Amino acid sequence: MKPTAQAIRHYLQFKDFSAEEYAYLFERAAIIKRRFKNYEKYQPLQDRTLAMIFEKASTRTRVSFEAGMYQMGGSVVHLTTGDSQLGRAEPIEDSARVISRMVDLVMIRTFEQSKIEAFAKHSRVPVINGLTNEYHPCQILADLFTYLEHRAMDRKGAVDLDALRGRVVAWVGDGNNMANTWLQAAEILGFTVHVSTPSGYEIDPRVAGISNTGCYKVFKDPRQACQGADLVTTDVWTSMGYEAENDARRLAFADWCVDAAMMAQAKPDALFMHCLPAHRGEEVSADVIDGPQSVVWDEAENRMHVQKALMEYLQLGRIG
Amino acid sequence: MKPTAQAIRHYLQFKDFSAEEYAYLFERAAIIKRRFKNYEKYQPLQDRTLAMIFEKASTRTRVSFEAGMYQMGGSVVHLTTGDSQLGRAEPIEDSARVISRMVDLVMIRTFEQSKIEAFAKHSRVPVINGLTNEYHPCQILADLFTYLEHRAMDRKGAVDLDALRGRVVAWVGDGNNMANTWLQAAEILGFTVHVSTPSGYEIDPRVAGISNTGCYKVFKDPRQACQGADLVTTDVWTSMGYEAENDARRLAFADWCVDAAMMAQAKPDALFMHCLPAHRGEEVSADVIDGPQSVVWDEAENRMHVQKALMEYLQLGRIG
Amino acid sequence: MKPTAQAIRHYLQFKDFSAEEYAYLFERAAIIKRRFKNYEKYQPLQDRTLAMIFEKASTRTRVSFEAGMYQMGGSVVHLTTGDSQLGRAEPIEDSARVISRMVDLVMIRTFEQSKIEAFAKHSRVPVINGLTNEYHPCQILADLFTYLEHRAMDRKGAVDLDALRGRVVAWVGDGNNMANTWLQAAEILGFTVHVSTPSGYEIDPRVAGISNTGCYKVFKDPRQACQGADLVTTDVWTSMGYEAENDARRLAFADWCVDAAMMAQAKPDALFMHCLPAHRGEEVSADVIDGPQSVVWDEAENRMHVQKALMEYLQLGRIG
Repeated sequence: MKPTAQAIRHYLQFKDFSAEEYAYLFERAAIIKRRFKNYEKYQPLQDRTLAMIFEKASTRTRVSFEAGMYQMGGSVVHLTTGDSQLGRAEPIEDSARVISRMVDLVMIRTFEQSKIEAFAKHSRVPVINGLTNEYHPCQILADLFTYLEHRAMDRKGAVDLDALRGRVVAWVGDGNNMANTWLQAAEILGFTVHVSTPSGYEIDPRVAGISNTGCYKVFKDPRQACQGADLVTTDVWTSMGYEAENDARRLAFADWCVDAAMMAQAKPDALFMHCLPAHRGEEVSADVIDGPQSVVWDEAENRMHVQKALMEYLQLGRIG
Repeated sequence: MKPTAQAIRHYLQFKDFSAEEYAYLFERAAIIKRRFKNYEKYQPLQDRTLAMIFEKASTRTRVSFEAGMYQMGGSVVHLTTGDSQLGRAEPIEDSARVISRMVDLVMIRTFEQSKIEAFAKHSRVPVINGLTNEYHPCQILADLFTYLEHRAMDRKGAVDLDALRGRVVAWVGDGNNMANTWLQAAEILGFTVHVSTPSGYEIDPRVAGISNTGCYKVFKDPRQACQGADLVTTDVWTSMGYEAENDARRLAFADWCVDAAMMAQAKPDALFMHCLPAHRGEEVSADVIDGPQSVVWDEAENRMHVQKALMEYLQLGRIG
Repeated sequence: MKPTAQAIRHYLQFKDFSAEEYAYLFERAAIIKRRFKNYEKYQPLQDRTLAMIFEKASTRTRVSFEAGMYQMGGSVVHLTTGDSQLGRAEPIEDSARVISRMVDLVMIRTFEQSKIEAFAKHSRVPVINGLTNEYHPCQILADLFTYLEHRAMDRKGAVDLDALRGRVVAWVGDGNNMANTWLQAAEILGFTVHVSTPSGYEIDPRVAGISNTGCYKVFKDPRQACQGADLVTTDVWTSMGYEAENDARRLAFADWCVDAAMMAQAKPDALFMHCLPAHRGEEVSADVIDGPQSVVWDEAENRMHVQKALMEYLQLGRIG
């Protein structure tokens, strides 16, 4: 029977799932990715429809969710603020009530986290956070899977989540939704985040929503943050919605460019990640993002595969 | 063989179908809805494509038609005036000729009824009215199904259309496309509409297109219109396209708010419906729309199920 | 295995394929069209996804590719410059790398040919030109198929490509992307194009990219160009992107209207084609486009069928 009650699982923040659930999701993602690469048809969501609601533009989130749903056999209704009335002509609670009667799953990319939470509260079907001002859990899901794929996955795709324990992730740049989500992931999965942001762009651990301050360290100097790191990662200096601050940010972030010198501080086999789009010469130099330590294209592709695993889990629960 | 002639059925107005056809559609809608609720896959339109043409924004019509088509196994091409050239760069007749060669079904939401009629005249495939300035047949289809579901459907979903005979529907508010369509429905299905509109916003029975004036009564006082009603229904004061009149309308419609006092005039078990989006405190009070007599969320969901039945009928004719 | 190397075929210009490949494509298009007309389900692309990227508005290209892909069982992600970041926030090479990891096929409608070539160079999957400033190969594919369908196809759909040898196609009007593509087709398939453009709007054989100047002749007088033609074809005077030149073009093109007098210069059974939308009274008179020699509606429908054959070929190679 279609769900009617509020006993549904949503994925609004990284901390909504347990370490054990992440281990399961990464294993499913590996299986689902292998099937895709081998043209093995796997379409368990054939009678399911995903509604995607975009209040911010997107290429990666759009294509990864939409193509991912199609690969799983499902369908997608793509709504933008432009052609719908979401949050304008009616309370978001009413939109949630109506839309969640018609589809099986909802993905929302919006501004305030409170908006997606209001929607989820009145939704009959699972809601996925496709990026808010505060969090970006699907991206970190992809990043962690990419790390494990490169470091801790055997040929059969078995995942060793323990490979993350004690590792160091260097976050260089804006104390934004990505940084917040990295902190949540570190707390749940047992690694450490070295955070270095320009002054005025610090993370706020209350927004990150973590209780254990031991899972991160703050560094003034981004090079110091990178020392001994297993993974160095950054983001554009000016995220969507902050364009007015562009000039001020360029000035403030000038020393937070991940270049070869900065990568040299990290472990010799450290990986470089970036959630894209990238601005070469700003937050990352061309020789780093286009160099041998960069795994940004795998990372981008993996968005799709981890999200397929996530949608499968939210629709069908555990398989096998 | 794909159709080439003009012997196709369209659904441009409520009066395009007979009472007997409505009885059939409501039974199919009940069956199709039950399958959806039970996750029973039913995909008879797997090789069919619906083109949806939107010249006015929409959430409900968009999601209900699109998700509905997917649930029936079909596909959807969603065109908006923004990304297509419909009615701009070429005569609508040419668009109809071209688009209807490529798809199996067309849904249009536009302004003038004459536009959808011009399209239908040159279309090789069935055309469905998804709302015009004059009519909104799919919404009334949903409303009647919702009434029957709550009042006259046994457990197996058998529909007793006679349950509508002699019933009273109170229409409180704008003499708009919804009101016109209610009048057509009353004439065909044998119930009575009590219409109360502010002065200057009256219905025009010529636009409604009915020949029998016995199927409706006009009341100056909206409370009087509600007396003895089995169903009370209203709409926003300012429909899309009339935003310039917003201030004048707020003034004129002030006494046409469906609140608890007005509902008290109707039968004790009267239902409340609203095609949404709703503006609480304007055309309806929060305690009515969020109260026990309101069936607006069922009504919204039923848009999808009756439209699935409609699309099945226009594509495959009678089943079984 | 999903492709990873650069051994992929793209369709960026008409000359990317050989005469022998065109013979194959036209035969497949005939088979695929017949199945569509007879409601024979044929869905060989069920696990494939097409990304369509539109930087210019379109109805025909949009519907023909999207509905075509659905009919073949596949799925479509429709991206516009409006809701994506393509070519704005990141280098087109990065978009190509990311998108081509997630889908199986990409269609692009853009301005400069160099843009689609940059995309294709970094794409892991085949890229199709859905119109650029320089070329429009899919339209000429449809036009040639339509010609063969009306002239050289037996009941079973067997195609005699030799029927094109020595034929004369009169191109009347702008020396644009359509004209360039006609020249490429003439060189490969052995027919002759009579080109007549107003002064200042001549074709540039270097842009057309042909080496054999014997495949076309230039005429000052459009009537002379039509003499003895098997096919007369034209396009709007002002293509998308050139609207600022509208007034100047109306003046310059005044004598390049394909009317009954001009058609009378061609062979008595000559066909008339137009890629649409058409402006009756400008580049073509109503009695020609709506007259018995016009095959413009078949031509429009055939866009879809030849593109289905093209997508099948780029995905699955030769069938049988």
